[in-house]
Amino acid sequence: MIDKIYDDLNKCINDVFNACSNYACEGVEQNIGGPFGAGIIRKIDNKYKIICIERNTVIYSKDATCHAEINAIKAASKLLNKCFLDDCILVTSAKSCPMCLSAACWAKIPVIYYSQSYDNATSSGFKDNSISEYIKGNNDKLIQEVQIKNEECIRPFKIWNEKQDKICY
Amino acid sequence: MIDKIYDDLNKCINDVFNACSNYACEGVEQNIGGPFGAGIIRKIDNKYKIICIERNTVIYSKDATCHAEINAIKAASKLLNKCFLDDCILVTSAKSCPMCLSAACWAKIPVIYYSQSYDNATSSGFKDNSISEYIKGNNDKLIQEVQIKNEECIRPFKIWNEKQDKICY
Repeated sequence: MIDKIYDDLNKCINDVFNACSNYACEGVEQNIGGPFGAGIIRKIDNKYKIICIERNTVIYSKDATCHAEINAIKAASKLLNKCFLDDCILVTSAKSCPMCLSAACWAKIPVIYYSQSYDNATSSGFKDNSISEYIKGNNDKLIQEVQIKNEECIRPFKIWNEKQDKICY
Repeated sequence: MIDKIYDDLNKCINDVFNACSNYACEGVEQNIGGPFGAGIIRKIDNKYKIICIERNTVIYSKDATCHAEINAIKAASKLLNKCFLDDCILVTSAKSCPMCLSAACWAKIPVIYYSQSYDNATSSGFKDNSISEYIKGNNDKLIQEVQIKNEECIRPFKIWNEKQDKICY
């Protein structure tokens, strides 16, 4: 499947849904992580290729950032040896939480195809929706953010702003 | 500094601001990443210990997820061998983008101390604020999210919901 070249994007997306869901099912059964899978498709000359299939590994990795999409973005970046995946498509079994959605934005991924809504995650005990509501300003109890102004923290910005050969992202 | 035990949280935060800003300055000069640094403090018996000092490594790592806070959460999780950092404090040179803010929520970090606002990041060309506005529903052009319902993607949730020995997070 990984080496196959697809003419039909929908067929390719469907294969990613199936593969990452199977992988996520195994991951849940083995206590590797939550019930989420994701994959990345690359578009090359109007054809499509699956770059990677990943799953949530929060428990196994002992790392709260190891969501399926973060794992997929990291794997694709490594495989393609680049940080901007603007020729790629993210396919994920469930709507991306704000962490993964923002990661896709930073990676310049233009489109995400997802299957299950936040409702599925919420009813299985996950806080995707409450984090999203926190960012929207509708939930003030999730985390405390305190600003302490510090002059030293301005220095990196000054160096960045003045640097001629910086690589913007 | 890393081995020091602090009685005074403000002194500890100040040392993290200084150390992570210096590290970020070097990172900008060497084209390792953007002008951002972060550190994690652990609270132990009402005293404070700096666990790690990290910086943005997006360019060097060729990975758009390698923000200072994500690097810090990953480093602290590895050092402490656990995915929940509920006894830790995140200190960051600039207000966390939605990716890093959500990562802190997932890691159960109760509080973030930050110095510079989104305005600093925006005026240096970074899209922290536009990603935040996208999640709030005020900016519809950043990324496209398309739902395609797929029966296979429900299976991992069903297995999760029925699993007796699952480790919730």
